[in-house]
Amino acid sequence: MRTKVAIIGSGPSGLLLGQLLTKAGIDNVILDRVSKDYILGRVRAGVLEEGTVGLLDKAGCGARMHEEGLPHDGFSLAFDGRDHRIDLLGLTGGKRVMVYGQTEVTRDLMEQRERDGSVTIYEASDVEPHDFDTTTPYVTYRTDGISHRIDCDFIAGCDGFHGPSRKAVPERAIRVFEKVYPFGWLGILAEVAPVNHELIYANHPSGFALCSMRSPTRSRYYVQCTLEEKIEDWSDDRFWDELRRRLPAHHAEALVTAPSFEKSIAPLRSFVAEPMRFGTMFLVGDAAHIVPPTGAKGLNLAASDVYYLFEGLQQFYGERSSAGIDAYSGKALARVWKAVRFSWWMTTMMHRFPDTDEFDQKIQEAELDYLTHSRAASTALAENYVGLPY
Amino acid sequence: MRTKVAIIGSGPSGLLLGQLLTKAGIDNVILDRVSKDYILGRVRAGVLEEGTVGLLDKAGCGARMHEEGLPHDGFSLAFDGRDHRIDLLGLTGGKRVMVYGQTEVTRDLMEQRERDGSVTIYEASDVEPHDFDTTTPYVTYRTDGISHRIDCDFIAGCDGFHGPSRKAVPERAIRVFEKVYPFGWLGILAEVAPVNHELIYANHPSGFALCSMRSPTRSRYYVQCTLEEKIEDWSDDRFWDELRRRLPAHHAEALVTAPSFEKSIAPLRSFVAEPMRFGTMFLVGDAAHIVPPTGAKGLNLAASDVYYLFEGLQQFYGERSSAGIDAYSGKALARVWKAVRFSWWMTTMMHRFPDTDEFDQKIQEAELDYLTHSRAASTALAENYVGLPY
Repeated sequence: MRTKVAIIGSGPSGLLLGQLLTKAGIDNVILDRVSKDYILGRVRAGVLEEGTVGLLDKAGCGARMHEEGLPHDGFSLAFDGRDHRIDLLGLTGGKRVMVYGQTEVTRDLMEQRERDGSVTIYEASDVEPHDFDTTTPYVTYRTDGISHRIDCDFIAGCDGFHGPSRKAVPERAIRVFEKVYPFGWLGILAEVAPVNHELIYANHPSGFALCSMRSPTRSRYYVQCTLEEKIEDWSDDRFWDELRRRLPAHHAEALVTAPSFEKSIAPLRSFVAEPMRFGTMFLVGDAAHIVPPTGAKGLNLAASDVYYLFEGLQQFYGERSSAGIDAYSGKALARVWKAVRFSWWMTTMMHRFPDTDEFDQKIQEAELDYLTHSRAASTALAENYVGLPY
Repeated sequence: MRTKVAIIGSGPSGLLLGQLLTKAGIDNVILDRVSKDYILGRVRAGVLEEGTVGLLDKAGCGARMHEEGLPHDGFSLAFDGRDHRIDLLGLTGGKRVMVYGQTEVTRDLMEQRERDGSVTIYEASDVEPHDFDTTTPYVTYRTDGISHRIDCDFIAGCDGFHGPSRKAVPERAIRVFEKVYPFGWLGILAEVAPVNHELIYANHPSGFALCSMRSPTRSRYYVQCTLEEKIEDWSDDRFWDELRRRLPAHHAEALVTAPSFEKSIAPLRSFVAEPMRFGTMFLVGDAAHIVPPTGAKGLNLAASDVYYLFEGLQQFYGERSSAGIDAYSGKALARVWKAVRFSWWMTTMMHRFPDTDEFDQKIQEAELDYLTHSRAASTALAENYVGLPY
């Protein structure tokens, strides 16, 4: 088989890139190691920046998002028994975020791709990019025991942190930067109305908590936990008690509980691989960088990578100029590091670190006090939260 | 002897408090363990916030400062071979700082105190506050081997980090928070025109550097050094070479050098003692808190402490209300912690830490990149630099 762009990974970044390319008339094939149902079964966050919303619209996949998604004009920082609203709309001069689950984004993109008749190969095992140091790269994979090869102009590695694209790069050609946080997030999904119509990020002596939602009737709640925690030690009752403890009283009293239908523990990590281009292969999204979920930047960074790469590829095929793809890594990384910094900062400010001394704890409290009393500092938080410009 | 307020320490905070009290008709005595000449021989920073300038005016000691001081509307952050100006005036809606050496502030206050005929006892040894858990506290000291005692209503401990006031507080009554930084500042004074008309804070792979000044013909320069550094290993030539290395090329080329006439190494420390009131004794300035010099908050924090304490004492003597002195510790500490946070943040952002890993180094670079590209983040820096409101 031959295509222009072989996309490894059928998550939101691969699908979004594929959709934009298809709409621009640039032939592409998506490969994924798992099935469509498996992909749609993954539970992920869903706070979309306006830039991400705009790209989904541009890809022709925004209709259901605008209908079912929840535009949020602000969120709360809760600490010291009270909560303080960050007025995103007011502080940024009219910007907001859209709460719409990543699973729904993926579904919308998949369905549009099927309608368009573009090719996605699911359950492709042993996917491997080859010869991306040449202008004739190709990808090999197996289905039902049979080996296949796709020849292409470019490979887009949209295959996540554990995917084969980054792993195919020789170690000497790549630099990685990493920070592992000494805690995780224990999260549940429950069929109850959210405790608040906007998100609540809470910093409590017992640890961080987040009240989020998927819809007006489905809540997504998290509490910070140790890395040694076992999911089976967390009954629903224990979770609800711990969440209640970490919220200001008026929220704790308003919290409606129900049996959880999903419960999981995720570690928190910051990771960046540089550069993001290797000859004719590009890394996109989680394949190149991971941020802790605080501030919800992961999916949005994948979208901005897609934006820069799509612009570059469009320029390459439209004007036969490689300027855009040559600039990809630099442009994407400049924005990536700003979001990595923001996610690290918000994580540091809102969590309790096991090895924090008393001075650092006071600094954290002083930061929250300053942040919530300074319009400039609140604006800096808000402009990062809604997303820095592309 | 009897007075209303016994002030221990004849540095700028003790003198400023004494001057404000004297002007308000509240009798006070200042005690210092050293001589007037010794105090005036100390070399200290001198970037004054508008609040500090206002207090000096209120104390009737601002005339020479307005004549000889240098109002600064901005400063530079230098990194990555270029420098970026922080427009204090524009970002804060009209606020600036005043460059005027702490030694000069001290001299002006001392001279006014002499003109007013208020009592200062120099070279008082073994100064000790007593019975400050009662309403009849007193201070003892010795001059020329003779013991003396001053009875008073209140004791103001303006005697710096190493003074006797904080040391007289029982350990169980006080909480201290401390951070020692793994580097120091090697500073020189030289009779040359400053390399730039505004301050330059530089972050370079070799370490931090600061180009400051005392006057249009006298420069104060610093380079970050290790804590093991010996002053005798730093010839003037070595200092100038190191400073030049850490500045952007256009500044390095413009740097005029001359023999230094003062050279010293200072460690960097953050320290806060809580509370700042113990019965009838108040801690003021460095006696209660130390900040690293990055951002020049030390003297300005002492001034805001003096402001809160003076307001309280004036209310006590004018209206027989203790509301102001009861609020002193809480109000002062709220502002102290914001400045401690700012000084810690600016120190962290501008210095190279010996134990920094590659991720943290990239975060530092991302922070500088973001800060200098975001008006909101620049405004947050500027509003802290010119001084948060009292």
